Amino acid sequence: MEIQIAVAKTNKYASSESGDTLEVVERPNGGMSVVLSDGQTSGRGAKTISTMVVRKVITLLAEGVRDGAAARAASDYLYTERDGKVTACLNILSADFQTGTLVITRNNPSPVFVSQGGDIQCLSGESVAIGTSRNIRPSITEFQLLEGTTIVVYTDGLVHAGDRYGQFLDICTLLEGLLEEQNPTSQFIADSLLSEAIRIDQGRPNDDMSVVVLRVVSGVDDQIRRLAVRLPVPRIFPFS
Amino acid sequence: MEIQIAVAKTNKYASSESGDTLEVVERPNGGMSVVLSDGQTSGRGAKTISTMVVRKVITLLAEGVRDGAAARAASDYLYTERDGKVTACLNILSADFQTGTLVITRNNPSPVFVSQGGDIQCLSGESVAIGTSRNIRPSITEFQLLEGTTIVVYTDGLVHAGDRYGQFLDICTLLEGLLEEQNPTSQFIADSLLSEAIRIDQGRPNDDMSVVVLRVVSGVDDQIRRLAVRLPVPRIFPFS
Repeated sequence: MEIQIAVAKTNKYASSESGDTLEVVERPNGGMSVVLSDGQTSGRGAKTISTMVVRKVITLLAEGVRDGAAARAASDYLYTERDGKVTACLNILSADFQTGTLVITRNNPSPVFVSQGGDIQCLSGESVAIGTSRNIRPSITEFQLLEGTTIVVYTDGLVHAGDRYGQFLDICTLLEGLLEEQNPTSQFIADSLLSEAIRIDQGRPNDDMSVVVLRVVSGVDDQIRRLAVRLPVPRIFPFS
Repeated sequence: MEIQIAVAKTNKYASSESGDTLEVVERPNGGMSVVLSDGQTSGRGAKTISTMVVRKVITLLAEGVRDGAAARAASDYLYTERDGKVTACLNILSADFQTGTLVITRNNPSPVFVSQGGDIQCLSGESVAIGTSRNIRPSITEFQLLEGTTIVVYTDGLVHAGDRYGQFLDICTLLEGLLEEQNPTSQFIADSLLSEAIRIDQGRPNDDMSVVVLRVVSGVDDQIRRLAVRLPVPRIFPFS
């Protein structure tokens, strides 16, 4: 059995910096976590905020702190640092080998989709961004770590994709279609959802967009861990 | 132009935990760094050390500290924490968009291979592991960030692969062969080198093994960042 995590991420059109930050960390008691934050507004200011939040959460998770406690700590930290004036959305997605579960932590109004045993569930219960008050709680959902599970997490750039053109991204239907294909990879699902979002924004994303897809697949039992990053060199890169 | 980073990593045979730790971090002024540490011995103890080192380096890089300063800080930190009794190898590989360079930082006797403009260079100058004295310096090499560059970094599990059977891994020749193929991906190169190392260890790696491959390729100019992780669920996983 293998955990496949894939991310596809792009900036708001004509913006050189994404306000979304994403990092992956190994859990000290086994497993992996993905931390995604979307800072208020876009560009440099948003990037500073989302980086601050993700760094705090990653550091705590690496020390063995549980996901919910790490999310609360990040909220209090942001509230204190920025006097409650700045918000950030936060998602933590963990494959926890100690408990044998997949843990979804949300401080983000954007829903999360989970496909397990043929059904697609939409986790869309109320969930607020962190940073604006002292007692913000994350919404936490746990699933058994079972082969065939797929989880899709995304930032609000995808929620609002197509808004200006009277269109919207029906992630549930798209995901259903994608999962009908022959064992799609996580990267294929993430790329497909992102490219559809960019398409209905007429090729010019109206906001930063990030999609995370986690799948539990049978996989080759070779006990090799793999990581791959593809990073476009910016067009404004002074040396290219 | 696109930076492609790929990692393939496995444990010593019959060991549930790898003493090698690897993490990737976004550089605050643009670009990406990969930090790899190999803690002394193997198993849980080595993992604690390598995690400590990598966390320290990652935190500093995320704050904008330069690679060399981060490596020195990690050395002093390990020396102080463990009274100079424990060593760890450390490599930092950075694509720095601010300076337009690829920066290779080594505190590791294992060489690093760099292919640029048709030649393969072997960086094998003397370089010592961190943690045993107060004045350890990293060996730093910088290359221009040019299309067609390939860098291969690895831990000593690959250096000693095949030792017990009178064989050794000729990474330079293997890399030369791999680069002759039609535009191999970084993941293909990393997987090929690791599988060859495992093969000459008769399928039972005598040590933890990690390979990192960074390539600068032309790539599709879609300005999408991608990350993919494949993590085998351990066989001893109590819930599988």
